[in-house]
Amino acid sequence: MESAFFPPKEQIHRLIREVLVEDIGQGDVTTAAVLTDAERGEGKAVAKTELVVAGLDVFREAFLLLDKDIIFTPLCRDGDRVKEGDVMARLEGALAPMLMAERSALNLLQRMCGIATATERFVRTVEGTKARILDTRKTAPGLRVLDKYAVLVGGGCNHRFALYDGVLIKENHIAAAGGIAVAVERARARVPHTLKIEVEVSNIKELEEALAVQADIVMLDNMDLDQMKRAVEITGGRVPLEASGNVTLERVRAIAETGVDFISVGALTHSVQAADISLLISPLAH
Amino acid sequence: MESAFFPPKEQIHRLIREVLVEDIGQGDVTTAAVLTDAERGEGKAVAKTELVVAGLDVFREAFLLLDKDIIFTPLCRDGDRVKEGDVMARLEGALAPMLMAERSALNLLQRMCGIATATERFVRTVEGTKARILDTRKTAPGLRVLDKYAVLVGGGCNHRFALYDGVLIKENHIAAAGGIAVAVERARARVPHTLKIEVEVSNIKELEEALAVQADIVMLDNMDLDQMKRAVEITGGRVPLEASGNVTLERVRAIAETGVDFISVGALTHSVQAADISLLISPLAH
Amino acid sequence: MESAFFPPKEQIHRLIREVLVEDIGQGDVTTAAVLTDAERGEGKAVAKTELVVAGLDVFREAFLLLDKDIIFTPLCRDGDRVKEGDVMARLEGALAPMLMAERSALNLLQRMCGIATATERFVRTVEGTKARILDTRKTAPGLRVLDKYAVLVGGGCNHRFALYDGVLIKENHIAAAGGIAVAVERARARVPHTLKIEVEVSNIKELEEALAVQADIVMLDNMDLDQMKRAVEITGGRVPLEASGNVTLERVRAIAETGVDFISVGALTHSVQAADISLLISPLAH
Amino acid sequence: MESAFFPPKEQIHRLIREVLVEDIGQGDVTTAAVLTDAERGEGKAVAKTELVVAGLDVFREAFLLLDKDIIFTPLCRDGDRVKEGDVMARLEGALAPMLMAERSALNLLQRMCGIATATERFVRTVEGTKARILDTRKTAPGLRVLDKYAVLVGGGCNHRFALYDGVLIKENHIAAAGGIAVAVERARARVPHTLKIEVEVSNIKELEEALAVQADIVMLDNMDLDQMKRAVEITGGRVPLEASGNVTLERVRAIAETGVDFISVGALTHSVQAADISLLISPLAH
Amino acid sequence: MESAFFPPKEQIHRLIREVLVEDIGQGDVTTAAVLTDAERGEGKAVAKTELVVAGLDVFREAFLLLDKDIIFTPLCRDGDRVKEGDVMARLEGALAPMLMAERSALNLLQRMCGIATATERFVRTVEGTKARILDTRKTAPGLRVLDKYAVLVGGGCNHRFALYDGVLIKENHIAAAGGIAVAVERARARVPHTLKIEVEVSNIKELEEALAVQADIVMLDNMDLDQMKRAVEITGGRVPLEASGNVTLERVRAIAETGVDFISVGALTHSVQAADISLLISPLAH
Amino acid sequence: MESAFFPPKEQIHRLIREVLVEDIGQGDVTTAAVLTDAERGEGKAVAKTELVVAGLDVFREAFLLLDKDIIFTPLCRDGDRVKEGDVMARLEGALAPMLMAERSALNLLQRMCGIATATERFVRTVEGTKARILDTRKTAPGLRVLDKYAVLVGGGCNHRFALYDGVLIKENHIAAAGGIAVAVERARARVPHTLKIEVEVSNIKELEEALAVQADIVMLDNMDLDQMKRAVEITGGRVPLEASGNVTLERVRAIAETGVDFISVGALTHSVQAADISLLISPLAH
Repeated sequence: MESAFFPPKEQIHRLIREVLVEDIGQGDVTTAAVLTDAERGEGKAVAKTELVVAGLDVFREAFLLLDKDIIFTPLCRDGDRVKEGDVMARLEGALAPMLMAERSALNLLQRMCGIATATERFVRTVEGTKARILDTRKTAPGLRVLDKYAVLVGGGCNHRFALYDGVLIKENHIAAAGGIAVAVERARARVPHTLKIEVEVSNIKELEEALAVQADIVMLDNMDLDQMKRAVEITGGRVPLEASGNVTLERVRAIAETGVDFISVGALTHSVQAADISLLISPLAH
Repeated sequence: MESAFFPPKEQIHRLIREVLVEDIGQGDVTTAAVLTDAERGEGKAVAKTELVVAGLDVFREAFLLLDKDIIFTPLCRDGDRVKEGDVMARLEGALAPMLMAERSALNLLQRMCGIATATERFVRTVEGTKARILDTRKTAPGLRVLDKYAVLVGGGCNHRFALYDGVLIKENHIAAAGGIAVAVERARARVPHTLKIEVEVSNIKELEEALAVQADIVMLDNMDLDQMKRAVEITGGRVPLEASGNVTLERVRAIAETGVDFISVGALTHSVQAADISLLISPLAH
Repeated sequence: MESAFFPPKEQIHRLIREVLVEDIGQGDVTTAAVLTDAERGEGKAVAKTELVVAGLDVFREAFLLLDKDIIFTPLCRDGDRVKEGDVMARLEGALAPMLMAERSALNLLQRMCGIATATERFVRTVEGTKARILDTRKTAPGLRVLDKYAVLVGGGCNHRFALYDGVLIKENHIAAAGGIAVAVERARARVPHTLKIEVEVSNIKELEEALAVQADIVMLDNMDLDQMKRAVEITGGRVPLEASGNVTLERVRAIAETGVDFISVGALTHSVQAADISLLISPLAH
Repeated sequence: MESAFFPPKEQIHRLIREVLVEDIGQGDVTTAAVLTDAERGEGKAVAKTELVVAGLDVFREAFLLLDKDIIFTPLCRDGDRVKEGDVMARLEGALAPMLMAERSALNLLQRMCGIATATERFVRTVEGTKARILDTRKTAPGLRVLDKYAVLVGGGCNHRFALYDGVLIKENHIAAAGGIAVAVERARARVPHTLKIEVEVSNIKELEEALAVQADIVMLDNMDLDQMKRAVEITGGRVPLEASGNVTLERVRAIAETGVDFISVGALTHSVQAADISLLISPLAH
Repeated sequence: MESAFFPPKEQIHRLIREVLVEDIGQGDVTTAAVLTDAERGEGKAVAKTELVVAGLDVFREAFLLLDKDIIFTPLCRDGDRVKEGDVMARLEGALAPMLMAERSALNLLQRMCGIATATERFVRTVEGTKARILDTRKTAPGLRVLDKYAVLVGGGCNHRFALYDGVLIKENHIAAAGGIAVAVERARARVPHTLKIEVEVSNIKELEEALAVQADIVMLDNMDLDQMKRAVEITGGRVPLEASGNVTLERVRAIAETGVDFISVGALTHSVQAADISLLISPLAH
Repeated sequence: MESAFFPPKEQIHRLIREVLVEDIGQGDVTTAAVLTDAERGEGKAVAKTELVVAGLDVFREAFLLLDKDIIFTPLCRDGDRVKEGDVMARLEGALAPMLMAERSALNLLQRMCGIATATERFVRTVEGTKARILDTRKTAPGLRVLDKYAVLVGGGCNHRFALYDGVLIKENHIAAAGGIAVAVERARARVPHTLKIEVEVSNIKELEEALAVQADIVMLDNMDLDQMKRAVEITGGRVPLEASGNVTLERVRAIAETGVDFISVGALTHSVQAADISLLISPLAH
């Protein structure tokens, strides 16, 4: 996993544990009543549609946390594109924990594959331009670390993870400070010197102010294509430009062709289409 | 809030707290550098499209947990339909915490309104039939209590919350037990007597077996319309029937007209389209 | 473990961990001062009276969580009846962790065996009638999952686990709603369709109302034997009846003979007599 | 509350919160379906038998944590003896949270009153002797702080709270160390100087060894009355003596009359008879 | 509090709560035995030496978390320099919680004032140069948010908070990647574009490599004064330079005069001299 | 580890886990960007100065919690004195987790060795007298269990761990109770009989009062050498005496020579000089 996000296993485990507790609580009444400890089963995770794989490790852990003796055999890797009908992984072991973890594991995997698949579509659409596709902080509450990892897997880049690891001076910060110059100056004096200072602008005049005070990055907020082109010309490569606001698959190519460096896309994570994946489980003779 | 889910505030607070920690961590570097404690602001949550409101309390708490002195004035109620441009709530107070909580609060509200809006569309589409729209366990990991509440607000009904509060004997349970009759008998002997026993069937023969052993509810899994009609006839009202599998807005009316009692829709919560809502914040003179 | 409660190991571990922390805190000052890491010992859990075994897995885990190298050999199984003097399990390993976990492990085991033993006595007393013995929510705070498991092991059945997985409309709900009919109707409209609706009644008139609105189960609260017999006659098998209130070992047979289906017994878990079990530890030569 | 245990409210709150979560989880389905937010009610906690009150604060907090606007009026104090039919406290407020917290609150109060009542009976039985009644570590897992508080309220004294705050050299420690003298010497060298050193002995010879090395306290384990009398004579008041093992209400007076200083009683907390207390709730007109 | 670290109160409270639990556990046996609830007292926090104040809010919260009715009156503000004998804050309220929180509150305040005081001494020593004093990640485990806040209060600047919010390519990263150029290129491709890339160099050759690949910041690791001067000349202001390694109060001025932009000082937080502060408490008549 | 503190591994792990989370959060951006999973490395923990080793187990666990496959070879033991240049431990394994855990592991080890080294210096200074060196509750918040362990390793003794496991009646308790006699009498009546009663006195008159009521230990608070000598004479060995207040390395020998039994030294833990230890990591060919 060569990614800028390398979350320690510890933390992923804690998240999965909470997900299992949410679904299983004091026990799965159906499985406990109908099965015994003796039954064994085999499971196959099957893609029901073409998709980009993300989250196989998370999927595996959901089963292993319930029963460390389940044998999990991945048949693809994060980042692979699989076709409808492809078996993504195989499981073998006690049937009861397999049934108990099924929904939690799929909920995680389907969301992550959904994000990676959508991201890859955006990335492919801008291929050949220099624009890179970014995510945002519009993630599902509590799942940011997984949502952002899935964006990486899909070929996108991560914007700041949270409010604590990146400076983005927005309209309201500027209004409160009394102008772009003051806001940037305060940030430069006070934030750790390891952070760049990004400023959000909504028109050319503001862009010029941001450039004048040497912002490190400028975000073009909700500009139309002509404004963006003009912004690219004026900036002349001095700082990277990030396009933001209402970015759709239909419009993203045109945005990329304006010459901006980054395009951030909220929908990648705020409006996820779960990838269609089934777990086909069958009891094994014993 | 007249709902079957009445989660103690305590637990909602804990969830919101974790969401704020995910986004703010050790601090919002931008706000801390650019603002002082003195600035005050006003915020308006504005619907950017028509939507059904859900989660206003959760939205409010995200701000109040950061700063209990923020004044929050709701201008609509959960379950209301608002139009594009309507102001859903107004906030007033210290600007810094308002900016720090903004994204977390919106992530929660936009998801919940998205779910309620989609649910209401399904409910409206089956109006006049006896079918009720159900949710599933295909919710965002960690957010089930909010996802299911939003379904209720949108006019849907809740299926079991988790594996611990409802019995649903699925294909794999049946295969492991060696048949529907054995599986139902085991469940009847072992689960608390307060729970009904629902059995999943995928054809008419299985339906007849389930009826023969007096299952309390039968789920028709991935049947076509004709099969469903036949199932309704055979059942003759003896037990409620639930249609499940690939339910889309296009197809739901036809399903309802087969005469089934319930239709469960995974997409309500696994593929949420976030409702478009902005928080317009403006500094106040002080 | 064929039970309707199948709590994931994860959660049992968390509970045991908290129990160990309660008793050991920053360390066992006596053991740390008097022993070294080198001493090894052997332990035998001995029944000091006849009892029904419950909780051997929990007992084992209390030792293994402190020291995973302790060798634990169970000599009986949950549900077995053992006699005074029987050795229930044998341990071998480092002496220090064995002494540190001893009290926590016994506190758990003695309570669970106590519950199973008492339950089995009730179950045996009603043998030959159709009545099944139920537990209640009157469990030791924080220990419900263990208390209810022990009831199952003793041959009883579990009532709802908590407020979230069963509907029980009590006197106060009825008074607030304005009558049994309204209360049941509201519940039917709003609770998940997988839950049965149980209604508490305290006289024959209320029973008739509950039957009229087709409650799924009726609880006879604090009725005398004659009333219960009358209730059974009137009901005529249409719905299951549950007797509740002041059920003692002396009185339970007579209650069962009225023909009720279930008898719930609070004392099984609210007034537990700890089973008398000793852990005989002896140092091993090394 | 003049007690040696003065647990910060913070911690009691956390415990009560967990108890409420155990019972309410994602919501009380019955109350949520049948009641609205509008109903108000009045509750009276009534003793159904004579008892010693303990835990009124804990009882109150269980309601207030769910709804801080419930008005709670205590009508007695911890340590009071109340008669059958006495109203112990009155509540007024929203009906829904009152019903939701009822069982959790009573489970806590009934256990605590049960412990205090039993303790008081032991204390009364030894009245006139110098013996003081002690509790042990045989408490309900997770509830030690409440169990031990209830013992104090009932007039008993607390033995060490846990393994970390008292030194008790038992048979196994002695065997592992190779004798009482070595064990005591090691403890004296290594434990904090603020802790006394108590040694468990099971015969007169061991008592003499313990006295020879100046143990601070000696526990007489499972001695018969004659042995205890002899131990008292030999000790001659040099150190306090604690009688331990199989102490029943029938036997405690005779033990006390041997002249021992302390008598520890495991049954006070390991085999609690819950005090019989009802909460009579009635809806209020609104 | 105008700082780049603006930790939500929620998190500070959680930290303080854990500190109180560490010290109070199940109760303060001395206070519980000797005091009643009735006693009231007054406390004065007095500087026993000249110091820079940091952490007054944290100090206050330690008392208020135990008893929200304690009246706390600060007599100075974070960042103030106070003299020996100055009263920093006054408290009034119930005596028992005041005594119970005293040590925890002082442990926090004395550490924070110690850090601020040491930082201020370094900052003053380099006055007149352009060098800014930085902290490091060599903080007390679990206390980083407080340690770094105290550095800010003392006039220092914060380096990255943790591994997640700043890029620092060290010797080992370079060796593993196979050279500075490859390492920087990989970082530029993969880390969020909001982060600057800092490279650690230990000689002039490495500095030149780092400059060649346009590192955003260069850390001069353990260089002597001559090397640093040479590095400043070579860099010619193209990127900021940070001096690191064995920085003492004796040596810091000379380092600053080499012309580096930043000087990071591990000792500010890894070897704290607690500031000498007493809490003088006196009972009040009541 | 023969110590009076024997904290279960469970709890140490939890502490280390929190420390790792504090430093790594959602991931180490540098390592994730520059390294792959393939690189392996070797690390050596090298003492940069003479020191007493403490905390090697804690150091090891910080690495193993991130990656259980790292091979850790200790080359010394807690309590050993090592010289400048000595290799204390060797590590081998995946390079990425080694780099990610490095700072957390060193922060813990350097603090613990710093405390042990300072303690050993105090202990050596009083060699030949009967005085034993004690720690206090002036530890780093959250780290008490490690701080106190390090004191033991350095040859010191532990005072009470917290407020819950030792009785120390201070000036304020005495004032509130109305005198030493009343305070001691209350404590004797109410605290567990396993705890000694220590009384703080600041002059000879108070000492005499404490002796008169048979306090078990007396703390001489901030007395000068002459007063201490006089106190020793008056006490005549009846109870142990503890000297406290402003104990420095310069003064400690003279204090010991007054004949006191214990000397408590706050600076051991409140003003720690981190021991200078480096982790030299080098990539291994693979």
